Amino acid sequence: MYKVKVYVTLKKSVIDPHGSAVEKKLRELDYNEVSNIRVGKYIEFFVKKSDRDVEEVVKEVCEKMLVNPVIEDFRYEIEESVNQ
Amino acid sequence: MYKVKVYVTLKKSVIDPHGSAVEKKLRELDYNEVSNIRVGKYIEFFVKKSDRDVEEVVKEVCEKMLVNPVIEDFRYEIEESVNQ
Repeated sequence: MYKVKVYVTLKKSVIDPHGSAVEKKLRELDYNEVSNIRVGKYIEFFVKKSDRDVEEVVKEVCEKMLVNPVIEDFRYEIEESVNQ
Repeated sequence: MYKVKVYVTLKKSVIDPHGSAVEKKLRELDYNEVSNIRVGKYIEFFVKKSDRDVEEVVKEVCEKMLVNPVIEDFRYEIEESVNQ
């Protein structure tokens, strides 16, 4: 069994309305030291060992289901996990 | 300047409809080795050095704006950053 962590972020060139909304609110609350908030996704899942390469499975899952490659980047970590 | 990374996850006891939807779709696509998908948030921002403790600022921002403590857990990483 593998534990997989995927980090999905908006590409630098893409405006982040969620981040901007949080930042605007923080200004109102006088947190002026905080800037450049970018809100992405953090996804965890498990992959059972099979005859397929785990990295290949993870990439396919990301590209088909979790990430919009037009506006998002992603990276992932795969670690062996004994128990689920 | 500090770069901050925040990971927000649903508490274990909380059902994750987004994760379940992805998992159902993956079953249909025959990715049967993938399980327990949990979708959380990954947030990045910068904190300018000030007379306030950076960790205190980060905790407050998380608790006030980024995390719903009833259903979510969070952890964060703070690293010194030279340029934004």
